[in-house]
Amino acid sequence: MTPGTFEILKQDPRGGARLGRLWTAHGPVDTPVFMPVGTQATVKAMTPAELEALDFQIVLGNTYHLNIRPGVDVIEQMGGLHSFMGWGRAILTDSGGYQVFSLAKLNRITDEGVTFQSHVDGATHVLGPESAMALQRRLGSDIAMVFDECTPYPCDRKYACQAVDRTLAWAALCARQPRAAGQLVFGIVQGSVYADLRERCARGLMELAFDGYAIGGVSVGEPHALILQGIEESVRHLPADRPRYLMGVGSHPHMVEAVARGVDMFDCVMPTRLARHGTAFTRAGKYPVKAALYSRDPRPLEEGCPCYACRHFSRAYVRHLMNVNEILGIRLLTMHNLYRYGAFVQEMREAIAAGDYGTYARRFVVEYGNGRAGEPANGRDE
Amino acid sequence: MTPGTFEILKQDPRGGARLGRLWTAHGPVDTPVFMPVGTQATVKAMTPAELEALDFQIVLGNTYHLNIRPGVDVIEQMGGLHSFMGWGRAILTDSGGYQVFSLAKLNRITDEGVTFQSHVDGATHVLGPESAMALQRRLGSDIAMVFDECTPYPCDRKYACQAVDRTLAWAALCARQPRAAGQLVFGIVQGSVYADLRERCARGLMELAFDGYAIGGVSVGEPHALILQGIEESVRHLPADRPRYLMGVGSHPHMVEAVARGVDMFDCVMPTRLARHGTAFTRAGKYPVKAALYSRDPRPLEEGCPCYACRHFSRAYVRHLMNVNEILGIRLLTMHNLYRYGAFVQEMREAIAAGDYGTYARRFVVEYGNGRAGEPANGRDE
Repeated sequence: MTPGTFEILKQDPRGGARLGRLWTAHGPVDTPVFMPVGTQATVKAMTPAELEALDFQIVLGNTYHLNIRPGVDVIEQMGGLHSFMGWGRAILTDSGGYQVFSLAKLNRITDEGVTFQSHVDGATHVLGPESAMALQRRLGSDIAMVFDECTPYPCDRKYACQAVDRTLAWAALCARQPRAAGQLVFGIVQGSVYADLRERCARGLMELAFDGYAIGGVSVGEPHALILQGIEESVRHLPADRPRYLMGVGSHPHMVEAVARGVDMFDCVMPTRLARHGTAFTRAGKYPVKAALYSRDPRPLEEGCPCYACRHFSRAYVRHLMNVNEILGIRLLTMHNLYRYGAFVQEMREAIAAGDYGTYARRFVVEYGNGRAGEPANGRDE
Repeated sequence: MTPGTFEILKQDPRGGARLGRLWTAHGPVDTPVFMPVGTQATVKAMTPAELEALDFQIVLGNTYHLNIRPGVDVIEQMGGLHSFMGWGRAILTDSGGYQVFSLAKLNRITDEGVTFQSHVDGATHVLGPESAMALQRRLGSDIAMVFDECTPYPCDRKYACQAVDRTLAWAALCARQPRAAGQLVFGIVQGSVYADLRERCARGLMELAFDGYAIGGVSVGEPHALILQGIEESVRHLPADRPRYLMGVGSHPHMVEAVARGVDMFDCVMPTRLARHGTAFTRAGKYPVKAALYSRDPRPLEEGCPCYACRHFSRAYVRHLMNVNEILGIRLLTMHNLYRYGAFVQEMREAIAAGDYGTYARRFVVEYGNGRAGEPANGRDE
């Protein structure tokens, strides 16, 4: 299939959820999809072989980080990002916009781009629509993101309006840049919590006919209701035949709601980052396995889970590993959490295929976070 | 085969090297063998499945560390150390003697044992011959080590003499303690650099008829010649039909020399610890992959190596991972280094089986550490 082809295999009859397949230069991506984050050319603590075994079809890379270390020239010389990190499936690269505005020390924002100091060594860098696209072209990612201005929350209307202006101007520039072979480019809808700004941004991007559209500036600190509203106000004005990507959102309840509203793609650091902090995700919510409660718990991280960690090791063992700072503890939690995320989007796809996403979503919300995550085994005395 | 059976399959016709097979309650151990160190119930950064894939037949656990965290009672309740860490092959446990004398803050040494403060939280613990054996029985290891007094270098004759007295007295007590089903017990030869003390210790231990004999207090800071002498002065007086274990020695040149002198078993933290510091082991020696020299080096960690890390990733990638503190860098280096150690003892076993260990050992010494480890690729400009 030609890269960029987006097949909508099934549309939920009573809502916005849809089952799709996006084709990239490195294979298909079945949607709704969760994309593990590989900021520094590695999904933290995982090998590519382990990610493949978990059936992930696409991972993220971050232009901002890779440009600082090891440098895009190194990666280009090593044959591009796929070759460098030993990953043969699809890669989406962030443009660096988000990191420039959240991590770096900003010096100057102009229509040409942003001058900033690296969060690592303070060195001065410039990133703008043209350079961000050039870097992503040299990385050779399958999906490149436009360089946008991501606004924080809260954000006054005037600044949100300026950011939309800038995001649209930059998007127009990005759309004209050369691409790697088969590389897709996604636009990003900004507009903070202002419905009319989100509409203006979405309509402006559509005129540029991107391969897909992302929703940015959502889940940046605003309350739940505003998150859902931000998604709705963005999706409403986006073309139905193109994939929609909700950037950085990975809480399961948000994902269920977002899929119901027509979102196809997700990425989030939560499964990997919280693993490093000792948190296990389960069907019923998440829990801290380092708690004393689990010191003699013979059960796996999640009962009934078929992942490698759950088939072979107890909570007592994982808790011990985390308490003595052993890498294997992080590995087992990361592996399990990513399995859970993969199984979760798989369940959503199956529910859409079965034509009954609404029932699935309602049941999910009831069962998730009901306090049963990691509950003690019966008869245990701790 | 009954645990403790030690088959000598081949004796080198022109030296002390021998090919053997030691049977444990959890399977055979082909010697000469390298045993990866799993101090805290995990060989750092590795899963049991990965260790099995590398054909390791036995790993180490440390009584001292496991007794502090998570506590031997926890491990016992989880079904013993094999079950706790998900490892179905053999385990050798150190008695804690070495750690008590090297890591802990000592309070009092008596004939009954040692009172010390934990290196973790300063809590007071007591460890002696009876408790060390009881803990190892409860851990359920396949090979338990006697509780000994390991002397540092330099060590005056009087202290070395006292330590031998104490080691022998404690060994006699250890020999009488109850064991786990099928558990073997090894004595430990001390005596520092004094040939007559090593002889007295070895002869004293032999009277207690242990299942195997370790050489302790070697490679604790003394020069190369004294290391070899310490090995020789110990091996000379040990029974030929029992396995000999050189504790804590893992430099390849020392291992080659030790095997030539009749040593069968080795353990060392080097392949795993140096991996965490960015060092790769190769046939030609070791090198620091973090060096700028390797920033664009497309070659694997070791050319021609069939391990997972070398089949899929470049030095440039591993260097990048280590420079940005990514766990995958440690994983790939650990995996490769352990592969190298496994391949190294495998080569030694093959050379003994071929009846020409001497030639192998001489060639090894010439080829190892000749400055070619990690040399730059031809025509590279860094």
